[in-house]
Amino acid sequence: MFNNVGIVGVGLIGASIALEIKRNNLAQMVFGFDENQKSLELATKNGTIDGYSSIKDIGVCDFVVVATPVGSIVDVLKDVIPKLKDGAIVIDVGSVKGAVVDKIKPFLNDRVHFVPIHPIAGIEKFGVLSAKEGLFEGAYCIVTPYDGINKFTVSKIENFIKALGMRIEFMDAKEHDKVFAYISHLPHLIAYALVALIEEKDDEKFKFIGGGFRDFTRIAASSEKMWSDIFLLNKDKLLESIKEFEGSVEKIKLLIENNNTEELIKYLKQARIYKESLDER
Amino acid sequence: MFNNVGIVGVGLIGASIALEIKRNNLAQMVFGFDENQKSLELATKNGTIDGYSSIKDIGVCDFVVVATPVGSIVDVLKDVIPKLKDGAIVIDVGSVKGAVVDKIKPFLNDRVHFVPIHPIAGIEKFGVLSAKEGLFEGAYCIVTPYDGINKFTVSKIENFIKALGMRIEFMDAKEHDKVFAYISHLPHLIAYALVALIEEKDDEKFKFIGGGFRDFTRIAASSEKMWSDIFLLNKDKLLESIKEFEGSVEKIKLLIENNNTEELIKYLKQARIYKESLDER
Repeated sequence: MFNNVGIVGVGLIGASIALEIKRNNLAQMVFGFDENQKSLELATKNGTIDGYSSIKDIGVCDFVVVATPVGSIVDVLKDVIPKLKDGAIVIDVGSVKGAVVDKIKPFLNDRVHFVPIHPIAGIEKFGVLSAKEGLFEGAYCIVTPYDGINKFTVSKIENFIKALGMRIEFMDAKEHDKVFAYISHLPHLIAYALVALIEEKDDEKFKFIGGGFRDFTRIAASSEKMWSDIFLLNKDKLLESIKEFEGSVEKIKLLIENNNTEELIKYLKQARIYKESLDER
Repeated sequence: MFNNVGIVGVGLIGASIALEIKRNNLAQMVFGFDENQKSLELATKNGTIDGYSSIKDIGVCDFVVVATPVGSIVDVLKDVIPKLKDGAIVIDVGSVKGAVVDKIKPFLNDRVHFVPIHPIAGIEKFGVLSAKEGLFEGAYCIVTPYDGINKFTVSKIENFIKALGMRIEFMDAKEHDKVFAYISHLPHLIAYALVALIEEKDDEKFKFIGGGFRDFTRIAASSEKMWSDIFLLNKDKLLESIKEFEGSVEKIKLLIENNNTEELIKYLKQARIYKESLDER
């Protein structure tokens, strides 16, 4: 499918994509690019990538995957695109799409083809050593095309995504950011806020923390660099979702304050039934 | 250990205790008492209990486990205690202890011995069919003694708890309710509030809901009767924890609004490190 692939950002997602490319023979060579020398050495040593170099050599690649924390994706793209040869393809795999597409559009040209995608395959771990085969199997991958995108390239990336074992959905970049504010960014923010509160309160008695709390806060063990980038880049939609969440908490708080048992049960039951319907999707 | 055991409330916890009593030969007979006739029939049919009757016959039991939703525990105790013979033991297994102990104390006597306990072994399922052997294995069980409690009975209940495979901790009832407001009741409330918000927003696009959100809201699939009881009985401490949680959200919101990247990363990192330290306990 490709000759030389460049993975910029050899972390969980970047290294897992490299593994899948090699496993499925989608390219001849896979090279890593990362500011972290140790990640590159580890990935080469365990065979995740075939070798590594500095970004000035990225011109040898006909396909580049930008998998850095989402806050640096635009700068990486601005740096990489002019270095690539005619007809090369670049994708980014960040969790925020609207801001990235808006900012990079003025720097795009007809020589190099850019496709923004978002594979929904994160786990709470991070770093090259967390990478694994099968991470993307059966997961959704969202593609957010923009006006003037090269349709042939989109088709090629569709095939690439399918080869990774993922299901494809197309979505407007701004719509994507709104949906993910609610179903991913807000839950992470809440988990961080709860863990921070428990830390403030911490004493020996918190050892009784049970399964519910642990599951709930598992996602707070993700990379802080990644999440601060996401929170800041998707600021507007996230702040809107926080406001609505606070309204939701206020509603349930009022029912408790007023001892409104009947409405409280109704509210919780409705949430449970909806939750169960989500699980069945 | 006992002759006739009465399980009042044959749900997840009550039926699981019945299973352990039978598996470990801790009693000669285990009888069920429940307003829900179907639960009693199911539990008898699959051998969880040896039989069932109406509460007026509870006098045959020398050991009674009250495992109803916590909002009805006080009424059940008031009804059951006068019917029991001299020296009988009653425990309750509710998730809120302070309000129950305060309300039942005036109705206690020297004939029947009451010990409040809280096994930390809930799962998000509920009902007699969710009961299973091994539910309590290795879990903590908190005992909240009160002034004037019968020490010999406490020792006997300690042995009973150990026979169920649990580790024992003693705690003041009010302290218990404060700790569990933060580590259990608040997280559940937040999960319900988030699911309710997502439901309001619901459209087809929410099918991308990933592992993070699912884990996060798993606990919102618990019994609404149980949780509305808990929220209302532990009202004061829960409202306090909600207020502090709102402050925690506000803090992280301000960092985002002000694009304070450095402090935001610091805040998230601190939460991650604390979360990891919790997992190691």
